[in-house]
Amino acid sequence: MPTLVLLRHGQSQWNLENRFTGWWDVDLSQTGVTEARMAGSLMREKGLDFDCCFTSVLTRAIRTLHLALHEMDRLWLPVAKNWHLNERHYGGLTGLNKQEMIDKVGAEQVKVWRRSYDIPPPPLELGSEYDVSNDRRYAGIDAPLTESLKDTIARAVPYYEQEIAPALTAGKRVLVAAHGNSLRGIIKYLSNISDDEIVGLEIPTGKPIVYDLRDDLSVERRYYLDEA
Amino acid sequence: MPTLVLLRHGQSQWNLENRFTGWWDVDLSQTGVTEARMAGSLMREKGLDFDCCFTSVLTRAIRTLHLALHEMDRLWLPVAKNWHLNERHYGGLTGLNKQEMIDKVGAEQVKVWRRSYDIPPPPLELGSEYDVSNDRRYAGIDAPLTESLKDTIARAVPYYEQEIAPALTAGKRVLVAAHGNSLRGIIKYLSNISDDEIVGLEIPTGKPIVYDLRDDLSVERRYYLDEA
Repeated sequence: MPTLVLLRHGQSQWNLENRFTGWWDVDLSQTGVTEARMAGSLMREKGLDFDCCFTSVLTRAIRTLHLALHEMDRLWLPVAKNWHLNERHYGGLTGLNKQEMIDKVGAEQVKVWRRSYDIPPPPLELGSEYDVSNDRRYAGIDAPLTESLKDTIARAVPYYEQEIAPALTAGKRVLVAAHGNSLRGIIKYLSNISDDEIVGLEIPTGKPIVYDLRDDLSVERRYYLDEA
Repeated sequence: MPTLVLLRHGQSQWNLENRFTGWWDVDLSQTGVTEARMAGSLMREKGLDFDCCFTSVLTRAIRTLHLALHEMDRLWLPVAKNWHLNERHYGGLTGLNKQEMIDKVGAEQVKVWRRSYDIPPPPLELGSEYDVSNDRRYAGIDAPLTESLKDTIARAVPYYEQEIAPALTAGKRVLVAAHGNSLRGIIKYLSNISDDEIVGLEIPTGKPIVYDLRDDLSVERRYYLDEA
């Protein structure tokens, strides 16, 4: 039975500070490091094992994967890193403290940007502090300057279809370490969740989500590993 | 100018205990972790940067690479892991304390096995404590049960020629994190070192060795980064 496990990265320094992060490459907090290690121990304890792994090009997801694999003695597994699994790009909101933002434009506007399915925040200004469009890890790609959740899903799902699904079909057990919104995309696709509903789906940090799949990759069961 | 950096993993738990390690998957010691981080800081400080990385399928080399890349904010770089870069397989010596071995068969015999170019130690017994031939990371490969230094070099050098050299030729800056004997292979090949001489070449742990190469990948200069 093909198995897919989704793991949202552990707490980052900016989760802790309550700031919009998106594509800004913030590291894990000490709590995040612990969460990642505990995810690995739990997977090991529950007898999960993998053949290949996928992650984003952001440090917090990659380290989460490495720390979990280390607990499982599986650092030797192949790992593909790709920007299609990155967090949603929060545009001009990047770097802002959520409370400051609320004070500035009002809770309603912030909620619209954060919680609507298809309305992106204003684009990040080129050359501004948190502009990563010239970072060489994005060389040759048309890096966005802002994204709605819909935009994020529109690049995460094709990556699932083109890279992850074929590995599952080939019989590989797959671990994906990524972000709240790129994982929402994969969950929306696999579990047929509506646009309205996916916006409100909270994905906890460091908590492995297991998909038992049928041979055609339709979903037999989805569950949190720590509740299994 | 194509640049290749070779990094021997930091001290492992068994380096510390003075035991033959080879393909047994021993983790870094706390000193090894520190060495790896310092290698990363040094490379960053000296302005080195990379486009892709290669390592073995052994935890101590992979973690050394990860810890160094983390210091450099380069965890997002692609990493290829391959058994051809593994340490020399020490056969029946695996797991033995070097002093115990000397007491048992005499210093001369141990020296022959450790220091001769083409005499392998006795093969590891199948099913014995340190037999890794059924480890699934070696599935589909004809895993050795012992190796001379010559044997190790005979699989490390083709890997350099087929995978690493093409990346260098394509203009990529390459970091290889591996082991004393697989790195001896690459150094012997690049620097035209004789069979007799390579046996005595000591490669310190956690100390980046830089090769400045000409376009045809012949050697312009080889040096320790901390002496540059």
